Amino acid sequence: MKGRQTSIHVDAAQVGYDILIGSGGLDDPASFLRANSAASVAVVVTNDTLAPMYGRRVARSLTSAGWRVETVSLPDGEAYKVWSSVQLILDAMVALRCDRDSMVVALGGGVVGDIAGFAAACFMRGVRHTQVPTSLLAQVDSSVGGKTGINHPQGKNLIGAIHPPCRVVIDLEVLSTLPEREFAAGLAEIIKYGAACDPGFLDWIEANLEGLRKRSTPVLLEAVRRACEIKARIVAVDERELGLRAILNFGHTFAHAIETGLGHGQWLHGEAVGCGMLLAADLSSRMGRIDADLVRRLETIVHAAGLPVHSPPLGIPRYLDLMGMDKKRQGGQIRFVLLDGPGRSSVAAVDLSWVVASLEARVVAGRGATDL
Amino acid sequence: MKGRQTSIHVDAAQVGYDILIGSGGLDDPASFLRANSAASVAVVVTNDTLAPMYGRRVARSLTSAGWRVETVSLPDGEAYKVWSSVQLILDAMVALRCDRDSMVVALGGGVVGDIAGFAAACFMRGVRHTQVPTSLLAQVDSSVGGKTGINHPQGKNLIGAIHPPCRVVIDLEVLSTLPEREFAAGLAEIIKYGAACDPGFLDWIEANLEGLRKRSTPVLLEAVRRACEIKARIVAVDERELGLRAILNFGHTFAHAIETGLGHGQWLHGEAVGCGMLLAADLSSRMGRIDADLVRRLETIVHAAGLPVHSPPLGIPRYLDLMGMDKKRQGGQIRFVLLDGPGRSSVAAVDLSWVVASLEARVVAGRGATDL
Repeated sequence: MKGRQTSIHVDAAQVGYDILIGSGGLDDPASFLRANSAASVAVVVTNDTLAPMYGRRVARSLTSAGWRVETVSLPDGEAYKVWSSVQLILDAMVALRCDRDSMVVALGGGVVGDIAGFAAACFMRGVRHTQVPTSLLAQVDSSVGGKTGINHPQGKNLIGAIHPPCRVVIDLEVLSTLPEREFAAGLAEIIKYGAACDPGFLDWIEANLEGLRKRSTPVLLEAVRRACEIKARIVAVDERELGLRAILNFGHTFAHAIETGLGHGQWLHGEAVGCGMLLAADLSSRMGRIDADLVRRLETIVHAAGLPVHSPPLGIPRYLDLMGMDKKRQGGQIRFVLLDGPGRSSVAAVDLSWVVASLEARVVAGRGATDL
Repeated sequence: MKGRQTSIHVDAAQVGYDILIGSGGLDDPASFLRANSAASVAVVVTNDTLAPMYGRRVARSLTSAGWRVETVSLPDGEAYKVWSSVQLILDAMVALRCDRDSMVVALGGGVVGDIAGFAAACFMRGVRHTQVPTSLLAQVDSSVGGKTGINHPQGKNLIGAIHPPCRVVIDLEVLSTLPEREFAAGLAEIIKYGAACDPGFLDWIEANLEGLRKRSTPVLLEAVRRACEIKARIVAVDERELGLRAILNFGHTFAHAIETGLGHGQWLHGEAVGCGMLLAADLSSRMGRIDADLVRRLETIVHAAGLPVHSPPLGIPRYLDLMGMDKKRQGGQIRFVLLDGPGRSSVAAVDLSWVVASLEARVVAGRGATDL
């Protein structure tokens, strides 16, 4: 890599790994683990949009690192996050006579990372994978922590594995070509780390929103580094999300309802997370856990990041239904990640009435389907 | 359970688990983990042959242990060890609104155990599974150690996960109905533990072959207990088969060649392992690692267990091809588990010429396709 760069070590339950963050990582053979032998195969999994942009560059770096390189390109889109894509990768690996020494390289956003990571988890009961995230969202969230998987027709990420990567290569230069909307969606997850986990980072984000939106490299380096450090710290303690890791779902219960309710692909995940965080903050305030000031402060930040702040008009019964809050569920409560202050959060069961009040306050009534 | 019983604790890399061995475990609610709540779902995965024999009994025990029980029955046979079977289980789990609190119960032989265990590994990135092995082979081998998976058209067990069970319930009573051939095939794996791992156990097997073949319960209890203890000890050290665990593949390189060469289903896995162990012992003797006496001793034991001792006439070039010993492979050598003495083994690279000599000595020339 060139210029300022940084590296974070993640202690995973299985084997630790390094996250390299900087500029030019894609083109630097030293970013990647070296092949054990001339026969070692690296299978680059990417999609048809990204392959022409970065495929050859990553393949060249891997070749210099000693790998025999082959590429599998999937169609672009969440619709392909299904078993047939995993099977395509596995078939290619079998045809290439891959063995336990082989490595999968996921070159893409969260969808490619999840599919390729799951294929690596399944092939011969687990081979190594390197994550090369090309979206801001994937750089600060899905590429770190070992969650891999595919969707089931009845639910996102229902099928998968915890299979930590052997390396994460974050090249900030790829962010320069991201569409505005997608970049802002990535900022939502960065804001999440500040809001739910780290008051100092929340202050820093607030002070650096200008630099973030201008995609200043030093500012992005700092933001991505701190976000990854927070995630690495949490994952080291709770890789399987038995407790602490759940706070990384701050805003996500509402967000999933928005995404599913609008139909996947209408709003980007990060856009839904932005609104979801504000709903969860409102809920925390109503329950007396935080001041209303903090809700307003977060709303200002989310808005300044270029994200929607009002949730789409799906109708409150539909929201409740999408969050599984029907009377058939045991106890009639649902567990949310709530704020206890700036940068502090915990999980608690919440009564339906509070949720209804927050939805009434923050959901747009009867305007168009989106609010961008 | 009733009568003599025993329990072994396995230290797995993730979370340890107990293997209960005795008579009547299927009908004893105490064999199974208790449900956390009245909503907790246990999905019993079995096959169409075993469901009428044991399905209702296991379901009754689970119900008494507090579970809401549902059953998924797959067609019987290795041909169904494919993704569509896993998908059938996952679809059922989604339809039943299973969550992380749910448990899969694999009621069957190795095929059911592998498929059901893999479904448990994939659902929501891993839920618990209990193994209830109904064949001797599964009781002493596949149900312990966490290997799960399915076949790829180009190779057995190419797709899978290491996902240890939360409990193994071994009911020796189910062995009374096993066909003679299948029972003998299970003995092959028991002999393997003695031959490759434990000289005292090899002596014991030799002294108790009569009781084993008569399926005497106290003799079986001792045999299964010692086999599971050996496996548990090895798996605790090397769950992912990075080193030591490989010795459990004693005889298996030849065995896989026999199975694939004859077409899967012609010989039972254990039958092929019996012959494979004798080939590997012959190889060890030729290389000066053991006396020829030990080869003869093992041949006597394998024969007395009711297993074939002469390998089927596939032709030596075909054997070599099936074991991947072609000139395209790096180095022209292949790694085998070899004996260093009774109950002692290690992995070593072997030259083609030794393998050819052993095949010439032990493969039947030009008789029928099988030698049973």
